[in-house]
Amino acid sequence: MLNTKLEFAKKVVRQAGGFIRQHLSDDLEISEKTHFDDLVTNLDREVQEQILTQILSTFPKDHVLAEENDVRHDIKDGNVWVLDPIDGTTNFIVQRDNFAVMLAYYESGIGKIGVILDVMSDNLYWGDGTSAYKNEAQIHLTVKPLRQSLIGVNTYMYRTNAGGLLDLSHESLGVRAIGSAGIEYVNILEGKIWGYFSNLSPWDYAAGAVLIAPFGYITQQIDGRPLAFEGRQMMMSVPSNQLDKIKAYIK
Amino acid sequence: MLNTKLEFAKKVVRQAGGFIRQHLSDDLEISEKTHFDDLVTNLDREVQEQILTQILSTFPKDHVLAEENDVRHDIKDGNVWVLDPIDGTTNFIVQRDNFAVMLAYYESGIGKIGVILDVMSDNLYWGDGTSAYKNEAQIHLTVKPLRQSLIGVNTYMYRTNAGGLLDLSHESLGVRAIGSAGIEYVNILEGKIWGYFSNLSPWDYAAGAVLIAPFGYITQQIDGRPLAFEGRQMMMSVPSNQLDKIKAYIK
Repeated sequence: MLNTKLEFAKKVVRQAGGFIRQHLSDDLEISEKTHFDDLVTNLDREVQEQILTQILSTFPKDHVLAEENDVRHDIKDGNVWVLDPIDGTTNFIVQRDNFAVMLAYYESGIGKIGVILDVMSDNLYWGDGTSAYKNEAQIHLTVKPLRQSLIGVNTYMYRTNAGGLLDLSHESLGVRAIGSAGIEYVNILEGKIWGYFSNLSPWDYAAGAVLIAPFGYITQQIDGRPLAFEGRQMMMSVPSNQLDKIKAYIK
Repeated sequence: MLNTKLEFAKKVVRQAGGFIRQHLSDDLEISEKTHFDDLVTNLDREVQEQILTQILSTFPKDHVLAEENDVRHDIKDGNVWVLDPIDGTTNFIVQRDNFAVMLAYYESGIGKIGVILDVMSDNLYWGDGTSAYKNEAQIHLTVKPLRQSLIGVNTYMYRTNAGGLLDLSHESLGVRAIGSAGIEYVNILEGKIWGYFSNLSPWDYAAGAVLIAPFGYITQQIDGRPLAFEGRQMMMSVPSNQLDKIKAYIK
């Protein structure tokens, strides 16, 4: 059954990516959510509806937790799909690049499936928590020490030293800011960044956490508590065997 | 003569990109310059030597200003080639992506040729200050207002509000940090960022300044003075017709 769901997840995410690329030259309907820099488009909502409809018609007993339209289900209650139809909406609007479709599947709060599509490169990253693949190739990842690495950051947390992130950054080769959690997780899987620190909602980290777990990564609140899978939380995805070292900076 | 030099510049930069990609899996010799996060590799130096040798053998009366090995010539004195063999060396080392080869040509301090190769995508951006091309296609660029745009920043300047950059960033949709001036200029040419603010050496901005000039961009010190083409300076590349608007923030 899990394999059926994994193939389903890969299929609907790839379809969504194709749909978005087909509509790349359309005039977008852009709306502000909370502030002029917090945007949503008609495509975010259409892609969510398409995937949500397919989930509920294929697996009618399952539930959905998704970014748009207040689709919220408790992650611990049964089989829950976690969906971000377009992650990095500002990049999508401004750059038509550096955005992702993300879909995860959890059973009673345990991550079972993670899928991220880098839409413009059309590379699909997928896994079940024990291994991960880029398209058809299994991913192998050797994590380097922080001092030989770059880290992905939320720029507000970086500049205000939230959780000690600025202090930690001085122990690295530098910080990078891309504007899409999905692409940051892709960059972890590609070995381009060592870890990722941000202030995120469940649909931003649900798929990524499953995808990077096989390589010894832990995804948790920056203070070490588990993620709540509701609301926004300051979080990090880091190599668990380097947690002790970064505790001098990250609190 | 200028056309001969433009074709020469495109050729040697493309050759350098091919050379770097061929050696992508080599073990690099990595040395620290000023600090553990200021790195240079044997490939930076080999590529510089290759291009420098070709410049001086083809145009023996010309001069060179280049990043490595203290190759310094006054930009205002005669015909000067400005070379950054690998821009974004840290990205090159850590990511094997997001780095560039950059070559510019100035006559008595006036930019005549700019060439940037995004090495991993193998896209060549080139121009003569009056128009610009991506490979064989002429670039057309419509600059949006800042409030509908992203900006590329040096993270130190951003977090310390150097020159008012943090204040300005609040008027944009957000900041991005890539770690390569060359890729930032590519992102301006691609319409992905509205402007770029950093603390740079001449080889970091010489080619980019020529490439973006046809679209109304000015490249100057953040306080409005002309760039000196020596040492590092806090600079910006911004649409000149929006200079008045940003003067409320950038000083």
